[in-house]
Amino acid sequence: MANRARVLIDCDDAKGLVYHFSKIFYDRELNVDTNREFVDKERSKFFMRSVVTGEFDVDELRDAIVSVAPKNAHIRVVEPKPKKIVLMATKESHCLGDILIRWISGELEADIEAVISNRDNLRDLTRRFDIPFLYISSDDISREEHEEQVLDILKGLEFDYIVLAKYMRILSEDFVSNYPEKIINIHHSFLPAFVGANPYKQAHSRGVKIIGATAHFVTSDLDEGPIISQDVIPVNHRFEWKDMQRAGKDGEKIVLARALSLVLNDRVFVNGNKTIVF
Amino acid sequence: MANRARVLIDCDDAKGLVYHFSKIFYDRELNVDTNREFVDKERSKFFMRSVVTGEFDVDELRDAIVSVAPKNAHIRVVEPKPKKIVLMATKESHCLGDILIRWISGELEADIEAVISNRDNLRDLTRRFDIPFLYISSDDISREEHEEQVLDILKGLEFDYIVLAKYMRILSEDFVSNYPEKIINIHHSFLPAFVGANPYKQAHSRGVKIIGATAHFVTSDLDEGPIISQDVIPVNHRFEWKDMQRAGKDGEKIVLARALSLVLNDRVFVNGNKTIVF
Amino acid sequence: MANRARVLIDCDDAKGLVYHFSKIFYDRELNVDTNREFVDKERSKFFMRSVVTGEFDVDELRDAIVSVAPKNAHIRVVEPKPKKIVLMATKESHCLGDILIRWISGELEADIEAVISNRDNLRDLTRRFDIPFLYISSDDISREEHEEQVLDILKGLEFDYIVLAKYMRILSEDFVSNYPEKIINIHHSFLPAFVGANPYKQAHSRGVKIIGATAHFVTSDLDEGPIISQDVIPVNHRFEWKDMQRAGKDGEKIVLARALSLVLNDRVFVNGNKTIVF
Amino acid sequence: MANRARVLIDCDDAKGLVYHFSKIFYDRELNVDTNREFVDKERSKFFMRSVVTGEFDVDELRDAIVSVAPKNAHIRVVEPKPKKIVLMATKESHCLGDILIRWISGELEADIEAVISNRDNLRDLTRRFDIPFLYISSDDISREEHEEQVLDILKGLEFDYIVLAKYMRILSEDFVSNYPEKIINIHHSFLPAFVGANPYKQAHSRGVKIIGATAHFVTSDLDEGPIISQDVIPVNHRFEWKDMQRAGKDGEKIVLARALSLVLNDRVFVNGNKTIVF
Repeated sequence: MANRARVLIDCDDAKGLVYHFSKIFYDRELNVDTNREFVDKERSKFFMRSVVTGEFDVDELRDAIVSVAPKNAHIRVVEPKPKKIVLMATKESHCLGDILIRWISGELEADIEAVISNRDNLRDLTRRFDIPFLYISSDDISREEHEEQVLDILKGLEFDYIVLAKYMRILSEDFVSNYPEKIINIHHSFLPAFVGANPYKQAHSRGVKIIGATAHFVTSDLDEGPIISQDVIPVNHRFEWKDMQRAGKDGEKIVLARALSLVLNDRVFVNGNKTIVF
Repeated sequence: MANRARVLIDCDDAKGLVYHFSKIFYDRELNVDTNREFVDKERSKFFMRSVVTGEFDVDELRDAIVSVAPKNAHIRVVEPKPKKIVLMATKESHCLGDILIRWISGELEADIEAVISNRDNLRDLTRRFDIPFLYISSDDISREEHEEQVLDILKGLEFDYIVLAKYMRILSEDFVSNYPEKIINIHHSFLPAFVGANPYKQAHSRGVKIIGATAHFVTSDLDEGPIISQDVIPVNHRFEWKDMQRAGKDGEKIVLARALSLVLNDRVFVNGNKTIVF
Repeated sequence: MANRARVLIDCDDAKGLVYHFSKIFYDRELNVDTNREFVDKERSKFFMRSVVTGEFDVDELRDAIVSVAPKNAHIRVVEPKPKKIVLMATKESHCLGDILIRWISGELEADIEAVISNRDNLRDLTRRFDIPFLYISSDDISREEHEEQVLDILKGLEFDYIVLAKYMRILSEDFVSNYPEKIINIHHSFLPAFVGANPYKQAHSRGVKIIGATAHFVTSDLDEGPIISQDVIPVNHRFEWKDMQRAGKDGEKIVLARALSLVLNDRVFVNGNKTIVF
Repeated sequence: MANRARVLIDCDDAKGLVYHFSKIFYDRELNVDTNREFVDKERSKFFMRSVVTGEFDVDELRDAIVSVAPKNAHIRVVEPKPKKIVLMATKESHCLGDILIRWISGELEADIEAVISNRDNLRDLTRRFDIPFLYISSDDISREEHEEQVLDILKGLEFDYIVLAKYMRILSEDFVSNYPEKIINIHHSFLPAFVGANPYKQAHSRGVKIIGATAHFVTSDLDEGPIISQDVIPVNHRFEWKDMQRAGKDGEKIVLARALSLVLNDRVFVNGNKTIVF
């Protein structure tokens, strides 16, 4: 018997869905702590996130919901507990460090299983937090070989999400297809501006007055996955591109942490190439 | 028979409210276009705003909702149509002008019944938009006398909201008590910082790096009514207080317009001294 | 004899420029009210804006500065007085209206010579402010013919800047070449994201969490001119593209007004494809 | 002989200051990399920060500047090198952790001499970075005794600045008087709103829509010292005060880090109760 769960519903839209679902909660005498719904009329999709408390059997509750939901509905009843994440990084420490600090302070709703890197730079930082650092050099091997080695490692780990905390290699379509809606990336630009390499140089050369950062799910389309969170930082003509990069780092780590927290709290639904954030 | 309405519910919290209300929609075969709920656990209050479409009788729908709602519930079923507003201003034109432009462009979901002012400065601007300008001088008379004259005028007008678009006189408790939750003010500071006179001088003298604006409902407590919307503008040491004032004007007019739009769309519930904004 | 002027210097960088220029001010017993300099090291360019007060002859002062400046320096000594602008618009009123309100309130440091439009929609609004509305229909004629008619009108007007206040036609390279660094445009996106047609539809379809607006000088490269000012507005999954457009309008008018004010105060220097904003 | 220095001038305003100072640079064939000036007309004060490169003797340069500056001028010629800081904290780790990560990544322009705390909570985190953690319990002793013990420790350390990274005790006027313009604090509100205890509870109870954080120099007037940097975070009715606190932490650590970086780069001048930030 559970006492608290997040009910996550993602299905085709139909009349009376809120009624049907709330009836199930009512019949079981559950309290609805928070309730958010959204209908995407264009795609005719219904999304709902309810936090219910009371006394209930998770499987029974899910089955009841499934029984009144449209066909092919995606229903989850999730008890709140820390999820497991794997971090991937390359050499910059600001995003990794920020997540490690949140984790050791007990503020991250997740357990960090390991840090995987194609460079050795972040070993010392990671070890200070007693977290396994798995160095898989990308030197002198093909992208395919490298990804295979990473996949081998990942297969030996148990995790809910992979967080690319400034992992500076492009993941192949093949790799990504193993983890749909499970890989979160921080892109160091205000997507879709400045896709591709070195967004800060691009931003500097274009003379923009605001730069940004974008956290998104990774899909096979590079820089095109569903956006979870974005933020911006004002800059001006006195910023060299290195200054933009420095200023951008704060934005990157905050946006990634915010997106990660939303995902870990099951507040993010993927809706085609977009997200619903409750 | 109506085709579209906003259902606005404000009542004590109780188990099953969403179920009961959504059942009423379901039984009448109404579509729920959007649905937002919020429970204030501290005060044990439930708030809901649904937009329903279909075919229904407004009174019958409201009565049905009342019949399942807790005692003393505040239930409204509102058909979307322009509300009526009265503007009050003194001599600054930026907020008044912004509202007039939105109105003449058809972007304001309201009809402007009149502009009332204690100064004559804005007559020309108002008249350019063919809106009655009612000048009630505050010279040489007491506050009580002036407010009485304004009240006399207001009593001859039909309106839903009074918008203080930089009306620079303090309204008495007596005056305000006539229009509970009906008067919207723009305060030229980031409340509760710099309450009272000349916030920009205060902000300048304190050396803040950010200034702001606050739209709120007016209650008998000066500058203490429920906040609807706020925004901020970065400033720096080069700003004299006059520069802060100039920069602040853009914030003021945008925040007031945003708050007004929220209110006109029935998106704002007053919850004690706060607001719920759906 | 003048009492106050903005000294605007744009030249190749060299050692001692500040010394040489400040010596000229010192020798003439001028007060330097504000002074901003910037050196673009990449392009080896020096920019300076000083506001000087005292008693001086404008031509003598400029000649003195030229005499110590590097060759091909661009030196201006500008007495503060309202500049003249021509507005071009199509059918949306929010930017035009905002500028008109600022103008009639005496807050705009410019005289509006005329509003030129390819549509008739904004005639009524413009006339309410007693400003000439010049309607040059673009129906049934080629772009070349239309631009020629507009050019004919412009040639009969005296002005410092053309402000495209939501003028929704693309200007040809030929047209633009007549007014280098003289045309200011508001682009309804956070450039360089969503260049091209209907940025709000693009932004909606991409599922971004922030939209923006960009004011820039118009060059022959569409949407690629030097950026003067940018701002952003948060959005979320509940925004249809029409809602993004509505929310974006406030950003557009504020960013355009801010850019215009900067330009009118001679605070903007064009530096290649970027701007220096003092 | 030095190659690069920051020239920091803070003096009474007078005619020709820029000329006199730039002449000194010119006569010594120094390059002026960046140059910022500001005149506070109200207080008749002149501030200047120049970065010069070339070959020069620091003492000779300073003496030369002093010789042409008004009496009582405050002149510094500072070679860029890491400053020394002492951190003080209580039990929250987000600000301390953020600074530690920046330090170990080489991004902080400072050496951390020690972390001093009145609680033992942050010992483990600090030790992971091999930094001395000095625990001076405040239990069972008076404020005076505690401050005396802290002062004793501080006197044994060499440092340029004390950074209060969420040090949750009020420092006495006596204590503060030892380190004028040397103590930087992060206040967890948008000062001057919500001065005093638990700003997040205050903000929640007031129903604000935006919360903030303020970094400032500590003076004997609690929460009234010169503001260095501020930032804000949007909140809404769904935020309990604990949620505001959580959201506020990101703002606090970023604002403190930004203020610290500005101070470490000698970009901040104290001007009465305000700051000039170049």
